[in-house]
Amino acid sequence: MNNFTYFNPTKVHFGRESINKLGDLAQKTGSKALLMYGGGSIKNNGIYDKIIHQLAENSIEVVEYAGIKSNPVYQDVNSARDLAIKTNTDMIIAVGGGSVIDSAKIAALVVPEKMDAWDIMTGKTKPTKALPIITVLTLAATGSEMNQFAVLQNHEEKAKKGFGHPACYPKHSILDPELTYSVPKDYTAYGIVDLIAHALEAYFGDGECGIADRIVESIIKESIAFAPKVLNEPNNYDYRANIMWLATSALNGITTYGKTTGDWGVHDIGHVLSLLYDIPHGASLSIAYPAWLKLMKNKHEDKINRLGEEVFDCFQADDTISGFEGFFKAIGSPIRLSEINIGKEKHTEILKQMKLNKVSGYVNKLEEKNYPVLIDFMA
Amino acid sequence: MNNFTYFNPTKVHFGRESINKLGDLAQKTGSKALLMYGGGSIKNNGIYDKIIHQLAENSIEVVEYAGIKSNPVYQDVNSARDLAIKTNTDMIIAVGGGSVIDSAKIAALVVPEKMDAWDIMTGKTKPTKALPIITVLTLAATGSEMNQFAVLQNHEEKAKKGFGHPACYPKHSILDPELTYSVPKDYTAYGIVDLIAHALEAYFGDGECGIADRIVESIIKESIAFAPKVLNEPNNYDYRANIMWLATSALNGITTYGKTTGDWGVHDIGHVLSLLYDIPHGASLSIAYPAWLKLMKNKHEDKINRLGEEVFDCFQADDTISGFEGFFKAIGSPIRLSEINIGKEKHTEILKQMKLNKVSGYVNKLEEKNYPVLIDFMA
Repeated sequence: MNNFTYFNPTKVHFGRESINKLGDLAQKTGSKALLMYGGGSIKNNGIYDKIIHQLAENSIEVVEYAGIKSNPVYQDVNSARDLAIKTNTDMIIAVGGGSVIDSAKIAALVVPEKMDAWDIMTGKTKPTKALPIITVLTLAATGSEMNQFAVLQNHEEKAKKGFGHPACYPKHSILDPELTYSVPKDYTAYGIVDLIAHALEAYFGDGECGIADRIVESIIKESIAFAPKVLNEPNNYDYRANIMWLATSALNGITTYGKTTGDWGVHDIGHVLSLLYDIPHGASLSIAYPAWLKLMKNKHEDKINRLGEEVFDCFQADDTISGFEGFFKAIGSPIRLSEINIGKEKHTEILKQMKLNKVSGYVNKLEEKNYPVLIDFMA
Repeated sequence: MNNFTYFNPTKVHFGRESINKLGDLAQKTGSKALLMYGGGSIKNNGIYDKIIHQLAENSIEVVEYAGIKSNPVYQDVNSARDLAIKTNTDMIIAVGGGSVIDSAKIAALVVPEKMDAWDIMTGKTKPTKALPIITVLTLAATGSEMNQFAVLQNHEEKAKKGFGHPACYPKHSILDPELTYSVPKDYTAYGIVDLIAHALEAYFGDGECGIADRIVESIIKESIAFAPKVLNEPNNYDYRANIMWLATSALNGITTYGKTTGDWGVHDIGHVLSLLYDIPHGASLSIAYPAWLKLMKNKHEDKINRLGEEVFDCFQADDTISGFEGFFKAIGSPIRLSEINIGKEKHTEILKQMKLNKVSGYVNKLEEKNYPVLIDFMA
């Protein structure tokens, strides 16, 4: 087991009607909120109205920053920063999935010391404080609602980078499963792929910790059990609740304590695909993970076998990989580039971008010579 | 799944030589510490010297309160309070296992508003604040190092009560596995029983949450795997580290989020045995749990079967119970009262005390008419 520090100060308010706590929590946090959200789906499903009502009832002034993209860009964060500074807001309320919450985290960091968002992502400037953040989760996938990490894109530099800071833990996270009822089938599936990928990144990370690995296996088993149920019955509270809590649990730390760090090589590959073709994060991972497992089959044979035994009741690494492919396919997430109309003619472009991004992984280093193999597996 | 709030602000510093962080952490917390510990074993194994050295190096004044009993009593907490008030200490450092940490938590609560410890345990007075607490764990068992709960005894009233308060979360918990090397074989085993019992109390608690139950099964599987190893090689870092982290994980919340509350009926029974005969907490639980499972065999047949399947590879509730009995016995923890020389002549006394304490459980209510059955199973 490795040394570690366990600290997660986010207060999670999970459950039916927990959205009704927002007004009170906001009032205890500040008086003027920058409300960040995405493309506006919250205006169609009633969530926006509920939130505005809650905040008005608690005399919270609201400044809105809408339009965060699903693969979020640093420019939006800088614009949100300017708005927050100009209007003198003292907290950020993020309503959405990982893209909105990640953008809110970096916005919270850049406001107090008027920094540039991309400079933070690249480590050029070091923030020391942040505005308090309250999140209202509307998509089960990211885990960002209960950790200190954020990922942003920079299209000019064709880069997608992750960054973490202790000041980025949301102060409060409202997890109301009913707010995810309106997530469409495909994005529900991508969210499940994403959470499983987070668990796997921990599993193939550094260090040995039996309980951490068993928690990963448990998360994957439960996700696979609930996935078809929630896709068939999207308005079933219990199914949505389980998937929501599994997604949070997959990236709130309990899968890595005792293990130092996750691998994140597959996320690196997925980021390249999202950067080039703007494909949903989860869809990029259901394509990249089987390919990565095939490449790592010999190196991690024992572990992949064990995973198969625990999750798919099989005993061969090949069967484990087929198991994941079959599951991703069954829930409607692509497992090959060809399925999303990315043909052979794009392989050079993908290879080039992988080299540019130095796609690797913290633990299981990917070498350039293996990039073409990975692309073939993904084809 | 049930609604819940997840908030655990304790910062855990886990690992080799994490004890060396104490001075720095204490300095950031206050300037004068009430150092609480137990019977003085820390003076023989070098832990005391390390701590005193660390605190001196960081100019922390130290006032000592030693002699906390292994089944801690409220009088000690009141005495510690008087000492803390008299000497004007601004933090408490608890060095020990659950007894010391629990005493420190209630001491931290009674100091600021000069309350009575037992009044807090019984709910007669409601504390609102606490001195900050730093714990240095020397026994893997309690989980108290990362939660808000404490248990104290009152011999005059023959009562043992639990209490929890958000101000009781330790600010920092130092979990250095090497500090548990000198724990003798029997107490190492009792600690393992205790952590398994905590996991089971969650398992048979209220509400349904798949991931919570799987985490319980995972904790028990890992504990059973590491128990013989650590008993054979008490100075093996990795074995001690795993058991230590399993014990913390069994009661830091992850086994109950989504489930409302644990049952705690078996702890109620164990508390009666400890009250009457001062037997170690873990030993009382290895006697009480099999008896309780026998009583609940029909009510919880499916769940006990599943537990058996997951943990002991068996498919009958009876075999699950035998599995636990066999395991407890194998690690040297008693499973019958007769093994610790409590014969039939004591049964009336036990029955009387069970009635007096209204032994029950929050979820699976035990009725008085079943007390004799339980005692027979424990005999």
